[in-house]
Amino acid sequence: MKQMEDKILKEGVVLPGDILKVGSFLNQNIDTQLLNQMGQEIARLFEAENPTKILTIEASGIAIAAAAGLAMGVPVLFAKKHITSNVDGDVYSTVVHSFTHNADYNVVVSKDYLRAEDRVLLVDDFLANGKALEGLMDLCDQAGATLVGVAIAIEKCFTGAGDKFRAQGVRLESLAAIESMSENEIVFRS
Amino acid sequence: MKQMEDKILKEGVVLPGDILKVGSFLNQNIDTQLLNQMGQEIARLFEAENPTKILTIEASGIAIAAAAGLAMGVPVLFAKKHITSNVDGDVYSTVVHSFTHNADYNVVVSKDYLRAEDRVLLVDDFLANGKALEGLMDLCDQAGATLVGVAIAIEKCFTGAGDKFRAQGVRLESLAAIESMSENEIVFRS
Repeated sequence: MKQMEDKILKEGVVLPGDILKVGSFLNQNIDTQLLNQMGQEIARLFEAENPTKILTIEASGIAIAAAAGLAMGVPVLFAKKHITSNVDGDVYSTVVHSFTHNADYNVVVSKDYLRAEDRVLLVDDFLANGKALEGLMDLCDQAGATLVGVAIAIEKCFTGAGDKFRAQGVRLESLAAIESMSENEIVFRS
Repeated sequence: MKQMEDKILKEGVVLPGDILKVGSFLNQNIDTQLLNQMGQEIARLFEAENPTKILTIEASGIAIAAAAGLAMGVPVLFAKKHITSNVDGDVYSTVVHSFTHNADYNVVVSKDYLRAEDRVLLVDDFLANGKALEGLMDLCDQAGATLVGVAIAIEKCFTGAGDKFRAQGVRLESLAAIESMSENEIVFRS
């Protein structure tokens, strides 16, 4: 998606440790014009899959999932992250390791809101190591729901995680796919 | 806002401790048709104030703020909650006590994204004791920004917090304002 790539080139900042800072428009301050375009693009890519639910993970996936849900008229569900180990029986739960915070999180959704008959589109802001995505897929599996696709705002292709999911047959689409990045240059997958 | 009141009457569940559970449509699973109406209504209420920034707090305020931002074409900023006490110098920071989790949080926004020239509309899902809102107002004060108003999805009027802010001259509008609630009855302010 050209608008996303342009924005990354204009405002993204590459930091040591393969970190791409996009707080000015995506995951702290949100450019709502771009957000609207992102929602429309996700709708265009996945409308034919007839998703019945968009699933994301708090916090920075929520705005993107909401924009996609608004564009497609599909409800949005966000999984909650808890550092605590107390999870009651009315939820599906999985453990996701965060490299950013060097901690394990319980990621949970209520069983009331994710059902076997659901066709689920996963949405998140970043795909790097794929751990959050694996957790969301695990929640879908537990519910017996059908995964119809994955929409990612920014994929770090160089980790290989996205291509690993694709090789498993997952339909994964990124609005911007970064092949390589350094302080001086960001190269997108063509 | 009639659609919000109707939804609360239909799906809201009152639990002991003055808790109103609205996870089925507002703060875990999100009804995007209602979300769109909420965004339009917040736009209608506050457009004339010409906000330049919508400020909310993660996580459950984000979708509502995004819908309002999309409807108004205004960027959305969300303050982050950290349990840690490490806050670096590039952020405005305030402490908010959560009664739900019985913990103090540092609530922070980057100084890059909240400026003295900003006209800020605060958006959140619930107004109960007003602590989160006070924290967001404190962040605006630190930035020297102008508070133009507050939009709340559901106000628990019986706490008195909303009317306290109004008495201080804050323009605070709720999409649903609950005067009293019990297991059997929810009464809205007329």
